[in-house]
Amino acid sequence: MRVGLDVGGTKTDAVAVSSSGEIVGRVRLVTGWGSDAVVSTVLGAVAALEREAGIARGAISSIGVGIPGQIEPGSSRVLHAVNLGVAALDLAAAVEPQLGVPVRVENDVKAAALGAAALRTHTLNGTSSMAFLNLGTGVAAGIVAGGELWRGARGTAGEVGHISIDPNGPECRCGQRGCIEALAGGAAVAERWGRPGALPVRDVFDAADAGDARAIALRAGIAHGIAAAVRVLVLTADVDAVVLGGGLTALGERLADEVGRELRSRAAASAFMRSLRIEERFELLPAGSPAAALGAAIVGATRDPEGVLAHG
Amino acid sequence: MRVGLDVGGTKTDAVAVSSSGEIVGRVRLVTGWGSDAVVSTVLGAVAALEREAGIARGAISSIGVGIPGQIEPGSSRVLHAVNLGVAALDLAAAVEPQLGVPVRVENDVKAAALGAAALRTHTLNGTSSMAFLNLGTGVAAGIVAGGELWRGARGTAGEVGHISIDPNGPECRCGQRGCIEALAGGAAVAERWGRPGALPVRDVFDAADAGDARAIALRAGIAHGIAAAVRVLVLTADVDAVVLGGGLTALGERLADEVGRELRSRAAASAFMRSLRIEERFELLPAGSPAAALGAAIVGATRDPEGVLAHG
Repeated sequence: MRVGLDVGGTKTDAVAVSSSGEIVGRVRLVTGWGSDAVVSTVLGAVAALEREAGIARGAISSIGVGIPGQIEPGSSRVLHAVNLGVAALDLAAAVEPQLGVPVRVENDVKAAALGAAALRTHTLNGTSSMAFLNLGTGVAAGIVAGGELWRGARGTAGEVGHISIDPNGPECRCGQRGCIEALAGGAAVAERWGRPGALPVRDVFDAADAGDARAIALRAGIAHGIAAAVRVLVLTADVDAVVLGGGLTALGERLADEVGRELRSRAAASAFMRSLRIEERFELLPAGSPAAALGAAIVGATRDPEGVLAHG
Repeated sequence: MRVGLDVGGTKTDAVAVSSSGEIVGRVRLVTGWGSDAVVSTVLGAVAALEREAGIARGAISSIGVGIPGQIEPGSSRVLHAVNLGVAALDLAAAVEPQLGVPVRVENDVKAAALGAAALRTHTLNGTSSMAFLNLGTGVAAGIVAGGELWRGARGTAGEVGHISIDPNGPECRCGQRGCIEALAGGAAVAERWGRPGALPVRDVFDAADAGDARAIALRAGIAHGIAAAVRVLVLTADVDAVVLGGGLTALGERLADEVGRELRSRAAASAFMRSLRIEERFELLPAGSPAAALGAAIVGATRDPEGVLAHG
């Protein structure tokens, strides 16, 4: 039995996966804030799988954790997980003594990419390459090809959020202008929208539907940014499909419609873009998909951290 | 002995490579126009290696050809090689009967990427991944990682030239606006410069040096486009290095200085971009480099066209 945890900014999703790849148990917890609380959350998630899903501790052979931060290459050290209040934490070292099984840690977007690829392989009889585009506070992608995570040379593979697509676009927190993330990142949109509310991007879509001009412009920027990220992933890495995930995809068809419209309008203007059929190559991860936790389980079961396989 | 040919729009470069990877013979010919003339050029190049470089026909075990066109996947059919006047041509089928050795055909930019990677491995003791960014009539890249060409799902890997980086930028022949190729492609620059001359991009640089305002703007656009392509390759595929090649690199340091300035000015504004050290990660292919023909020789020696190795 392999266990995978997706430690998110607010919730942690945990799954237990059988040797045949089936998800046989799943629990969700509130994520704690700060290093000690994150360690407790991980321990609590495994205990909850045991208690609520009947997963015997002795049956667990490996644990993988996806976490929104930078992972020091070849280690389980989490750095700059700002949404969790973690500056630096060797997560495996902190939990392995109590869990008694090997723990591997991976960036959450990369783990989710592996999980989404595994689900596609499962449901769609295999695809040679795909990108998982995470639309959350920020925008970043994980690329999986031939079943393997594309790691790149220095840890910036898939950082498409900081590609500038408009020299006159809004300032990005990274210091550039017109970055994809400055247009389509949840935090950037919330800041520019500037009104209180728990779900600012949803508020923007609602206000745009009601005819608010500023919201319409922000919504167009979101669609333009996401469509640009999809195009960059297709034109650079030539992935077969781009799967959209992350908080913004809670908007479901409302988001997909805007992105599809933007992609189709560009295709209408360009025979070359039309030939790529990009509007048929993106899809939304279904709400409640276990992709991220499943991907973490795949990471956990991998012996060589440099050769993670999507097929688990 | 492996032979590699780089069939360019005006010249064809041919090399013979020993089993240890050394270039032991090299000749150049004028490329003919149209399918029949291209076939004659290939036959002529092999004959010239025999005559001028003393490469015995019987010693040749394989021939690879890099050509500026689309190659139908899994075949040696060249499509849309507009710069050669070739609409469709099965090049291997046309030359193999007379050459008596297996011939493989590859897109010239992809072949050059393999050759540039092999030269770097040779001279710099290995690099895990790199992109070859071809700056010619158009702009496109080939990506090599772990010694293998990144082929992508549908043949558009490395097509960074048609990523739009400015919604208000110049129209691109592809129908979009502000594409990297519309700013930095040789054909697009020549068209917007609009003055006669054999080397329009050099004329633009000369006029910019002399203070011509329009030339200064065009030169800035070239640097902006190339720098954007380098950033896209680093932020998406996270290649260790981007090697610039193609006709525009005949400008040498004059071009490298402009691109370096553009990359440094962006890094000055952004701590994130600074952390990537992109300005240290690009370099120009030296003038007269045999990379493209060498890469073609590597392609020719590969048994499985889907698993081309840079190490030959």
